[in-house]
Amino acid sequence: MSSNPSVDFLQACLEHNFWTWSAQSKVNPIPVTKAKGVYFWDVDGKRYLDLNSMVMCVNIGHGDERVVEAIVEQARQLPFAGPQMATQARGELCKKLTEIVPPGLSKFLFTLGGADANENAIKLARGYTGRFKILTRYRSYHGATYGAISLTGDPRRVAWEPTTMPGVVHFLDPYRYRSTFHRLNPDITEDEFCRDYLNHLEEIIQYERPETIAAILIETVTGTNGIIVPPDGYLQGVREICDRYGIVMICDEVMSGFGRTGEWFAVDHWKVVPDIMTMAKGLTSAYAPLGAVAMKPEIANAFNNKVYEGGLTFNGHPISLAAAIATIRVMQEDHLVERAKQMGQVMADMLAELAQRHPSIGEVRSIGLFGAIELVKNRKSKIPMAPFNQNSPEMIALRKYLLDQGVFLYTHWHTVLLVPPLIITEEQLAEGFEVIDRALIITDAAVEK
Amino acid sequence: MSSNPSVDFLQACLEHNFWTWSAQSKVNPIPVTKAKGVYFWDVDGKRYLDLNSMVMCVNIGHGDERVVEAIVEQARQLPFAGPQMATQARGELCKKLTEIVPPGLSKFLFTLGGADANENAIKLARGYTGRFKILTRYRSYHGATYGAISLTGDPRRVAWEPTTMPGVVHFLDPYRYRSTFHRLNPDITEDEFCRDYLNHLEEIIQYERPETIAAILIETVTGTNGIIVPPDGYLQGVREICDRYGIVMICDEVMSGFGRTGEWFAVDHWKVVPDIMTMAKGLTSAYAPLGAVAMKPEIANAFNNKVYEGGLTFNGHPISLAAAIATIRVMQEDHLVERAKQMGQVMADMLAELAQRHPSIGEVRSIGLFGAIELVKNRKSKIPMAPFNQNSPEMIALRKYLLDQGVFLYTHWHTVLLVPPLIITEEQLAEGFEVIDRALIITDAAVEK
Repeated sequence: MSSNPSVDFLQACLEHNFWTWSAQSKVNPIPVTKAKGVYFWDVDGKRYLDLNSMVMCVNIGHGDERVVEAIVEQARQLPFAGPQMATQARGELCKKLTEIVPPGLSKFLFTLGGADANENAIKLARGYTGRFKILTRYRSYHGATYGAISLTGDPRRVAWEPTTMPGVVHFLDPYRYRSTFHRLNPDITEDEFCRDYLNHLEEIIQYERPETIAAILIETVTGTNGIIVPPDGYLQGVREICDRYGIVMICDEVMSGFGRTGEWFAVDHWKVVPDIMTMAKGLTSAYAPLGAVAMKPEIANAFNNKVYEGGLTFNGHPISLAAAIATIRVMQEDHLVERAKQMGQVMADMLAELAQRHPSIGEVRSIGLFGAIELVKNRKSKIPMAPFNQNSPEMIALRKYLLDQGVFLYTHWHTVLLVPPLIITEEQLAEGFEVIDRALIITDAAVEK
Repeated sequence: MSSNPSVDFLQACLEHNFWTWSAQSKVNPIPVTKAKGVYFWDVDGKRYLDLNSMVMCVNIGHGDERVVEAIVEQARQLPFAGPQMATQARGELCKKLTEIVPPGLSKFLFTLGGADANENAIKLARGYTGRFKILTRYRSYHGATYGAISLTGDPRRVAWEPTTMPGVVHFLDPYRYRSTFHRLNPDITEDEFCRDYLNHLEEIIQYERPETIAAILIETVTGTNGIIVPPDGYLQGVREICDRYGIVMICDEVMSGFGRTGEWFAVDHWKVVPDIMTMAKGLTSAYAPLGAVAMKPEIANAFNNKVYEGGLTFNGHPISLAAAIATIRVMQEDHLVERAKQMGQVMADMLAELAQRHPSIGEVRSIGLFGAIELVKNRKSKIPMAPFNQNSPEMIALRKYLLDQGVFLYTHWHTVLLVPPLIITEEQLAEGFEVIDRALIITDAAVEK
């Protein structure tokens, strides 16, 4: 990596910046100076192919001038107004969102990111139902504020333990490749598999007593925990269970929204309308910080006469709203959702081909441009290339090789995620896959003979 | 108020926006179209004098082109980079902050606002000390995410109850005007008064056992709960207690920082250096969303080899960093801290004069351009003009009159807060006070005969 400590700004960052999700003495930040399309460059001019859209967020790609100029215009016109004020940008984004969210979601609460969107979502659900418990899944990530990390199922919630927010109950994900209870019948039909996991959810609901459960909150398609695509029928089944018990269905589309899966939102694949949907990341393609909670009017109406107790200074920041409006326009003008669907098929084919060539690939999964490679030491026993919630020499070496070769992507334990900007071309994808193909020799060498 | 529902964007906001801290059917948002200096305008051209800096945040005033153009430049150059990357803006803001924060605070963790700054502050303190409890004060507000609202002492934390984050213990504020235990000796010297409240803090620490306490988190000068200025010696006393017991001292300067009190940070009045200091609002004057946690190197070093478990997608968003750099430059170029001190004296005099003229004023308090008027029905019994955590017809009428007359400010229960942009002139202050003077006839009429 081209971390050149003679560079002033890198030096200042190393001296004074506190790095999140990091051991401070082990950071090696890339000193980025520019970004355009699917690439970014460091201070030494080295080019990186961005297969993670930075943090799974720059969906429209880097440096789109239409969004930049919308920010410029808003900054010059009205850079800030208070959260209790109506602005042109607030009204316009509200209207724009109604064009693209599932029908029936018509009220929007703006936040600064996905974490506080999820926190507000459960507060709304609790206020609406008068119930307390929230069901979420083990293989999930919902953000790092205290409430959001408590909702999170994956081990990142440990930093706030043992006192994470009470009332969160975790259930199992329909994760076919590693489904504990289908060890002996891996060939179960998708229908039956789906039915098992819906039955599991209902079993947990019974144990917890349905009348105590305010909401079920799920990532429609699980993100960092491995791009787990629900089996057909699962989302509809969760919807039906929620309806039966008066439970609010919340879909976290922070990562899966805004064209990522080849539809505007992942729920659209199954034509399911949640009661509340949270978003961030792709909402502005990260050109400015913004999150949002979309809800059905009946949820909002529960707060017609009682005060909704929550908010923040930067609620509906005009510059962020302007970035979101422009981002959605770009996606519409350039047909990026359709494009993600098409290129998603191309990527799926490339993944399948890669899986054939490399014994260290246990499974590949993707939906749209949201993909994962699961690396194993043994295809049969499925021993992961790194233990759960840990690193391994092979994964470290793989990551280093990719970065050295100018391919920027995210690895999570034993998985490699593929989350490129939606504007990526077939040639650019092939360019990335060619490097990944070479990199996988490292993990192939660790496969048990 | 000029809420004209024929305006498209206002109509869209009313139809689709979910309003925070509000009962949805009772909102009456001001449709803002432009803002400049200490004024903003609604869609009908009505001008408002902004005596609240929108949300106590636009410290340098509205529409400063130097900050706007810094945002423009950053947006065109590099609108986004990931949280693990070094950027020019990140390095530059780090260096700029070291020029203005208390000496010894040299590491900075960037967030999106004050709430997540405070959440990260206590996570750092817990990780550094290996202890768990956090002491905060009853009359405090630290943000609305789940962790931050749990830290908050004031009744806004109720929405997450009964399950707010465990381990937070609230103690009493050195609030002289309403000090329960000084009812019978109101003429106690400031020294003795200060000593009583430091002894109180130490008593609570003993009850809770010092070795269980990770941090004491206080607003250096209490904000929305009434601009409570600590007596001389209090901050030094808290510092000394923290040192004695190995407790991390965290000062929340989200509202009191960035010149608000006539110093860069309120702690500077007493030359106290906390171990951790949180900031937001004035950091960018709200031109873009940003918060930060400043810390001593020993706090950061505790995470040299163990991973700091926390972070967010928009950590160190370049546009927000650029806004902060430019904001600090503007404050330096225009000597706004000194100006706040000078105009603070002018405002203090105006407040004193107002108090003489109006029997409904129980007390006025201010430090720099951070002031409060405490309204009472009876100066002797100090019965507030609205009950604790409630509204009253008089306060509603007062607020309506002020807004009708084009004076925008924040009232909290029975108090009126004065938090104007630091660029306000004596004439503009006088313009506001003239309206307030007339408005107080409403509350004077409610004073017990």
